[in-house]
Amino acid sequence: MHQALDMLTISTQGPGLYEFTRDVRRFAAAANIGTGLLTIYCRHTSCSLLIQENADDDVKTDLDTFFARLVPQGMDWIVHTTEGPDDMPAHIKAALTQTSLAIPIAEGRPVFGTWQGIYLFEHRQRPHQRDVVLHILGET
Amino acid sequence: MHQALDMLTISTQGPGLYEFTRDVRRFAAAANIGTGLLTIYCRHTSCSLLIQENADDDVKTDLDTFFARLVPQGMDWIVHTTEGPDDMPAHIKAALTQTSLAIPIAEGRPVFGTWQGIYLFEHRQRPHQRDVVLHILGET
Amino acid sequence: MHQALDMLTISTQGPGLYEFTRDVRRFAAAANIGTGLLTIYCRHTSCSLLIQENADDDVKTDLDTFFARLVPQGMDWIVHTTEGPDDMPAHIKAALTQTSLAIPIAEGRPVFGTWQGIYLFEHRQRPHQRDVVLHILGET
Repeated sequence: MHQALDMLTISTQGPGLYEFTRDVRRFAAAANIGTGLLTIYCRHTSCSLLIQENADDDVKTDLDTFFARLVPQGMDWIVHTTEGPDDMPAHIKAALTQTSLAIPIAEGRPVFGTWQGIYLFEHRQRPHQRDVVLHILGET
Repeated sequence: MHQALDMLTISTQGPGLYEFTRDVRRFAAAANIGTGLLTIYCRHTSCSLLIQENADDDVKTDLDTFFARLVPQGMDWIVHTTEGPDDMPAHIKAALTQTSLAIPIAEGRPVFGTWQGIYLFEHRQRPHQRDVVLHILGET
Repeated sequence: MHQALDMLTISTQGPGLYEFTRDVRRFAAAANIGTGLLTIYCRHTSCSLLIQENADDDVKTDLDTFFARLVPQGMDWIVHTTEGPDDMPAHIKAALTQTSLAIPIAEGRPVFGTWQGIYLFEHRQRPHQRDVVLHILGET
């Protein structure tokens, strides 16, 4: 069994989807695994992970809008307000999406579909540095 | 370490939950893994995966209705409309559910609970062929 | 390759987030894996898993409130009513959150972020015993 681990730091400037598919592909290629399993893990609770279409940027815009409408700022029943009005909505949006993703590796590559991109979904307003762990295991 | 990989093609005829638990069990049994990890991966962004109750078909109906009401067609703020009125709602529903599932294997079987079934959740109106990758690793 | 498996039973007394991060850390430490992959799997369809902030209990309260408002009891279109008014909302909340979580292990520990806690998210009213499977694989 071979394994590799890496940590990406992704800089975000406000809410939205930040694609890092290329970094994931580069990590998988360097690991030299023929068949195996790739895991992507987000070390935060106010941003999250998403696999979504990367052909048309309008998809990113609409995902952003949907979540902003489903979980708006200013919901009057919120009690966790100490970290700002965007914090609790951020936790909720993270709960509705993913903290970890698992992707099989076949013939040396992640088995992504044609239109699938890997995104960090930032839910906070202010710029952040986000840590994402990449792990792969398998055989050459 | 032993590994096995397979790809299922699931034919869908409109929105709803398509169970493929039996295919997953068959794949796991054929792999002859005693202890290990099973991963199920959906290669699309307008359908998704779900583990849900498989005892009463009404649960499927209600899940379908809930998502159709939460993410209806015709939301007037949508900008990604080039692929039809059901496309962007499909991406949103996929974002709210799962693209990958991880299930431990113990005593040669996935550790599913009594009522758990594995479903492809189709979000598009027209018939589709959907690719789902199955991967298992572990030891006999 | 080394592997370990365990099953936790978590007692719940009504809806809400029940943290079991400490049990996960203890399991990972006992497995003596330096680099590897941890999987947490929920064997039910009316409760689920969530990684969320564990610094301020108000976050738990607000998550609970959000999901109770998004998926209230008494939605008049529900057809699956045989198991009580809280059952179908429970399935929907489980579908919107996670059944499985994957967490890389580095330097002998799960790569949790500073504020991340692991929760069982109970969606039923009555007390339940919930089974959660822990699996780890990797190398010392």
